[in-house]
Amino acid sequence: MDLDRSPLALPFPAAPRIDGATPHIARAGYKDWGRCDLTYFELAEGTAVAGVFTRNVCCSSEVEQGREQVKAGRARALVVNAGNSNAFTGYRGREAVDAIKAQVAGHLGCAPNEVFVSSTGVIGVPLPQDKARAGIAVALDAVPSTWEEAAATIGTTDTFPKGAVSSVNLDGTPVTLVGIVKGSGMIAPDMATMLGYVFTDAAIAPGLLQAMLSTASEASFNCITVDSDTSTSDTVLAFATGAAGNPLLESVDAPASRAFAAALEDICRELAHLVVRDGEGAQKFIEVRVTGAVSDASARRIGLAVANSPLVKTAIAGEDANWGRVVMAVGKAGEPADRDRLSIGFGGTWAARDGQPLPDYDETPVAAHLKGREVTIEIDLGLGEGRATVWTCDLTHGYIAINADYRS
Amino acid sequence: MDLDRSPLALPFPAAPRIDGATPHIARAGYKDWGRCDLTYFELAEGTAVAGVFTRNVCCSSEVEQGREQVKAGRARALVVNAGNSNAFTGYRGREAVDAIKAQVAGHLGCAPNEVFVSSTGVIGVPLPQDKARAGIAVALDAVPSTWEEAAATIGTTDTFPKGAVSSVNLDGTPVTLVGIVKGSGMIAPDMATMLGYVFTDAAIAPGLLQAMLSTASEASFNCITVDSDTSTSDTVLAFATGAAGNPLLESVDAPASRAFAAALEDICRELAHLVVRDGEGAQKFIEVRVTGAVSDASARRIGLAVANSPLVKTAIAGEDANWGRVVMAVGKAGEPADRDRLSIGFGGTWAARDGQPLPDYDETPVAAHLKGREVTIEIDLGLGEGRATVWTCDLTHGYIAINADYRS
Repeated sequence: MDLDRSPLALPFPAAPRIDGATPHIARAGYKDWGRCDLTYFELAEGTAVAGVFTRNVCCSSEVEQGREQVKAGRARALVVNAGNSNAFTGYRGREAVDAIKAQVAGHLGCAPNEVFVSSTGVIGVPLPQDKARAGIAVALDAVPSTWEEAAATIGTTDTFPKGAVSSVNLDGTPVTLVGIVKGSGMIAPDMATMLGYVFTDAAIAPGLLQAMLSTASEASFNCITVDSDTSTSDTVLAFATGAAGNPLLESVDAPASRAFAAALEDICRELAHLVVRDGEGAQKFIEVRVTGAVSDASARRIGLAVANSPLVKTAIAGEDANWGRVVMAVGKAGEPADRDRLSIGFGGTWAARDGQPLPDYDETPVAAHLKGREVTIEIDLGLGEGRATVWTCDLTHGYIAINADYRS
Repeated sequence: MDLDRSPLALPFPAAPRIDGATPHIARAGYKDWGRCDLTYFELAEGTAVAGVFTRNVCCSSEVEQGREQVKAGRARALVVNAGNSNAFTGYRGREAVDAIKAQVAGHLGCAPNEVFVSSTGVIGVPLPQDKARAGIAVALDAVPSTWEEAAATIGTTDTFPKGAVSSVNLDGTPVTLVGIVKGSGMIAPDMATMLGYVFTDAAIAPGLLQAMLSTASEASFNCITVDSDTSTSDTVLAFATGAAGNPLLESVDAPASRAFAAALEDICRELAHLVVRDGEGAQKFIEVRVTGAVSDASARRIGLAVANSPLVKTAIAGEDANWGRVVMAVGKAGEPADRDRLSIGFGGTWAARDGQPLPDYDETPVAAHLKGREVTIEIDLGLGEGRATVWTCDLTHGYIAINADYRS
């Protein structure tokens, strides 16, 4: 199926080389399509790695093995297969991952567990080992690709390549971060069919990198939802090659660590937003801001209940200021809420306050706000200091069209 | 918006009179529509009542008051308003309910708390008291309506009137049950915008009726979902007039009580299925059968995770035997599951067993099954004896069309 580029797409940023992290692309032919679908990233010796993975208990071998591999903290390569998730394929799935790791490790002269593998696409079909082997052989010999080409190659139902760039000065040494991400459907917190990778030339101890990535993911990838479905393959990995030569970051409290953590959180949030902007069928980018909850965690759960509500998402698609559906979604979240203290607004205009429609509520500015591409829903619980922001997209005919006809 | 009758609709059954419970309909004009929208049920003195209500914490005054009223166990009347839910309307909503109760109580010479009120429709607009008052005045004088007319009058986005009939012999006395229900969107367990009423001429103590209704709801109304959204107004009430003259049912263990409980559960399940059959945009009725879970409760949560998954529901809409999406939905339920023991089937044919696609899997019978109006998904966890069955419908363009353009 040919998909139109999302109307919420952003251009791919100018992304510089990262010393020690080089993408290469090839065509393995996992599906009957005329595009590259295998991406190979070669990483310098000593590269630190950290990862966060789906909590779906029916996860793929790639996820199971990756979760173990990050514990050692070192990576030399990453292979990403697009078009076949290799999930729910039993021992044949495990063998396919093992074969890829062995092939690349043999080429690089490293341990197989320093080779990370991700796969995304249809569930239940073992990854064909012959296609993977041939594709990797081509990729190992290929000239480096651009980040944009790599971002396009890891995509499946994505309608535009997604990347973000940041830089930060660590104790006098400039370092760069480049992130790419894929995902548009099966997106929900706890990592959906989303694969995200951040590469940096900073020198960072693996344990610290893991702590910073976990924190950054909580406020970014775990605060987005497209359709509440959680994929079996979701993975975010961060690789730090150390080529920039900054003094090794080891302590979470050092000013340089805090600077890097902020840059990492920014790039993760940008990548997460790009996934929402390519939400299947999305016509509008929706930010749900929750304040006044009993805690931040409660605010996040309320925000996600609203962001996952089909009735709220279709109302936004219809440009309908139907705040009653927002009330309904708050009420079903299973979190503390008091109907008579609840306030709901759109784009900075309150529609209802303290459990009642505002008597002088003028829908004109709200109607204008809802006609735009970026919509904000404000929810104040009036109970405490808890706050959270989550992001989603509207639910449109496009989502149905894509998902009632995705498997070939 | 004029909606086409659901292709899954069933004809309204031949429903007999229930002594002591008489419906009357009128046109209050809550919306700009040319149909009756107010239903008044007069109940004989001594009628027992039981109720189950939405767990949405932003519930309407109708629900708040009804929940208190059932504790006394007696009812003389029920008024149902269609087109305005009166939810999230503050003190004006409470006053509208109080006014209806006072008007009907004055007419019948009963206590206001013996008058039950339900309202369904748009949230956030106080129920207009003048329209309610005039509509009730007409209904009080109207000739009795049929059950089918009453079922049509309580509907909103419903595309067909929904009813079920049952009879049972209690210690030699035949008694009859007639149930009507409305609801098609905002349907999820814990009662969605669903209003259901069961009337019987049996003589039953209120406490026992409540216990039986709660049990029956668990395996029926709380096992259906259209879109995972839980309304602020959902209500199921059971009224037992006692006019049949059977010896009063008081003990849950008596054979007659067990017979009645079974009939009540049947009628509740029939009514629940009718709501799914009118799910907004539904083209297929889906039964999800879960076996082998660690407990019945775990099986039900897994079943609901599958039944609520947009990706599963769109796959069924597309007649795609995409069992990988079922695996995903099982895995995200947050319940015990072992990927390598999990089996998935459609219409009695296993597609995957013990965590792998079956090598000799023939999709032909599954493809034929998925072309039908009634689809079964079988899930065996392979872990224990827990089982549950839940029901839902597919997710189609019709759902988007209805909900992106519902509020006038």
